[in-house]
Amino acid sequence: MGNDPIITLTTDFGTRDGYVGAMIGVIVRQCPTARIFTITHDVKPQDIIGGAWALRNAWRWFPRETIHVAVVDPGVGTDRRPILVRAGGHTFVGPDNGLITGAIAGTMIDVARVIENPGARAPETSATFHGRDVFAWAAGWLTCGNEWPAIGGPIRPHHLVRPPDESPRVRKDQHGTSIQGRALLADRFGNLITSIFGTLIDEAMGPRSIPEVRVNGTPVRFGRTFGDVGDGESIAYVGSGGQLEIAINGGSAVEIFGNAASVVVSVPA
Amino acid sequence: MGNDPIITLTTDFGTRDGYVGAMIGVIVRQCPTARIFTITHDVKPQDIIGGAWALRNAWRWFPRETIHVAVVDPGVGTDRRPILVRAGGHTFVGPDNGLITGAIAGTMIDVARVIENPGARAPETSATFHGRDVFAWAAGWLTCGNEWPAIGGPIRPHHLVRPPDESPRVRKDQHGTSIQGRALLADRFGNLITSIFGTLIDEAMGPRSIPEVRVNGTPVRFGRTFGDVGDGESIAYVGSGGQLEIAINGGSAVEIFGNAASVVVSVPA
Amino acid sequence: MGNDPIITLTTDFGTRDGYVGAMIGVIVRQCPTARIFTITHDVKPQDIIGGAWALRNAWRWFPRETIHVAVVDPGVGTDRRPILVRAGGHTFVGPDNGLITGAIAGTMIDVARVIENPGARAPETSATFHGRDVFAWAAGWLTCGNEWPAIGGPIRPHHLVRPPDESPRVRKDQHGTSIQGRALLADRFGNLITSIFGTLIDEAMGPRSIPEVRVNGTPVRFGRTFGDVGDGESIAYVGSGGQLEIAINGGSAVEIFGNAASVVVSVPA
Repeated sequence: MGNDPIITLTTDFGTRDGYVGAMIGVIVRQCPTARIFTITHDVKPQDIIGGAWALRNAWRWFPRETIHVAVVDPGVGTDRRPILVRAGGHTFVGPDNGLITGAIAGTMIDVARVIENPGARAPETSATFHGRDVFAWAAGWLTCGNEWPAIGGPIRPHHLVRPPDESPRVRKDQHGTSIQGRALLADRFGNLITSIFGTLIDEAMGPRSIPEVRVNGTPVRFGRTFGDVGDGESIAYVGSGGQLEIAINGGSAVEIFGNAASVVVSVPA
Repeated sequence: MGNDPIITLTTDFGTRDGYVGAMIGVIVRQCPTARIFTITHDVKPQDIIGGAWALRNAWRWFPRETIHVAVVDPGVGTDRRPILVRAGGHTFVGPDNGLITGAIAGTMIDVARVIENPGARAPETSATFHGRDVFAWAAGWLTCGNEWPAIGGPIRPHHLVRPPDESPRVRKDQHGTSIQGRALLADRFGNLITSIFGTLIDEAMGPRSIPEVRVNGTPVRFGRTFGDVGDGESIAYVGSGGQLEIAINGGSAVEIFGNAASVVVSVPA
Repeated sequence: MGNDPIITLTTDFGTRDGYVGAMIGVIVRQCPTARIFTITHDVKPQDIIGGAWALRNAWRWFPRETIHVAVVDPGVGTDRRPILVRAGGHTFVGPDNGLITGAIAGTMIDVARVIENPGARAPETSATFHGRDVFAWAAGWLTCGNEWPAIGGPIRPHHLVRPPDESPRVRKDQHGTSIQGRALLADRFGNLITSIFGTLIDEAMGPRSIPEVRVNGTPVRFGRTFGDVGDGESIAYVGSGGQLEIAINGGSAVEIFGNAASVVVSVPA
């Protein structure tokens, strides 16, 4: 069983309507030994950025050769391409709309393919539920003895759809470095996840630098975890996903600052 | 492991209180090799129709001999019967209240039994949690070497409780066919699922017919998927579950039309 | 596979952000044969009492030697201890904040240990996500060939943090027994779970006693299940978890009585 194939699911299908159950059934029927784990089905409907964020938090912790099925798919039934992507030793299957490229941002894409082998999708494909008829089907097909090169023709990685560029703006002068980004989304605890990666801050840091953080212009203390400040106080720290996060100890940062707050980190020279 | 028994769960227990965990424990303790998949635990409390809909979307995609445990059970502790039903090569376990018969509507029932073998339920059965003490227990019992005929005496299929008849009214005259149904529920995306099966429309169609759809009297375009209309426009299409659905591209049909909207499909002769 | 290790997860991480997926990945990568079941991820953020209640409902139904990972952890990143507890033949892993001791209240603790073996946690431990870097890691470590005594030094069980004492006040006189407790929380159906265990009532009962229950001073009928009263009527009964519960047939007790309602059971002599 140690070699049983592992599949994860990331969707915006919710958990109420049986759609996810259909996807699981499709996989298990083709590949009874598949082990299937949910990353989330609670992405906000059609929120590609939120889906990419959830998958990004999780995928690299799974063993190599895990197959990640990701379906947030406002373009289902149109001509957006169904794709397979190989990166970091993992396989990703989903629509070509920025969901997968967003989830693996920072990891080199080894290979991308269109899913076009008729054996890798349902004999009759519905127009509205490619999660079941294309993506789950392809995952089951991949795990029951088929190899990904047979799934369809290659796509150049730079032809894949990317999410909007949210790279922060970095300026350096004699006073130090200023990194200007913004909040991208809030997690369940109301913590804001920003576009500023901790590595960017690290690069700007001198041996004794203390970063200054402003959220919507308000100074926020830079620390290690929300336990570092008193109840009701706000704090900025590099979160478990590697990005700068803004939290309020015992409170909700998104309620105070909004989910697109401007965030500026200044590192004195 | 390819022959390990597969069990699915469909309940209205939610995911907050540990009730589902207790069901899983009961199954795994009896049958350590059982593979357990959630269809949903987020059926609205006591919504038998919603539970049947979720299970209907999922069950047929699983392999034959899957055991589907379904518990939406407002009558727990009363004299409603706990039942086992065989249909389409699958086994269903749950209360006799229309949940199972609704989920398998359209599939012939091969066998129905009362769950009455004392070995197939907890030694002490609580009055309020048959999901754990009767239905999960029976599923574990069935998967660890017992055969369904031993579970209890037969019930004639036509004696099973059925959900209210929601068959649409069909009228044919020289002008064509009129199919009058209604919305039954909304899915997570706000799409309305109607009582009108696509097969009914197909039967009425001539070689060049274009169906006309009215929702609460308002004309709605008939198409293939929400991508077929512009943003904010409404569309009717046969959904992935085989029923006519009403959607608004980028919006919520249930907000506009309500979750019991009247739906009429006219197919000109 | 019957001997494959079983792990359960109980957290307040929600199901939207990929945090749970990261925990699962960490376990599966270390121990590919682990079978992982969710008890809940929908504990209210930082609600230790609610988390303990969910785990309490579920853990004892799993086979002995199951490892239960429980993370509701407002003190993450502070000096609260990460612990392993053995009780009832099961293993519990989580923060020392009353979550585990609350879940196993009434079961003798055999052993408690601090999680301090560097091999049992991530090489780099984040300050904010011990669910992934400490507790899931420890669970994976425990299931892939390591034994719990190696995880760290012993703690005396009575040094573990306990949840606030909610034991009801019991008074006996010539008229009978009065048990005064309160509602602790509401489940998904709006039923109130009280601090009064059914065993307390049993002990006070004579052969013909009928308990009288008052909720916020209002008499509530004592019965077996909500089906015992008419629609809209309230009822008190010993629930599937062994505690007195207050329900309204077809309604919500928490809406009527509030989630900290006073509950008094009088058993005449």
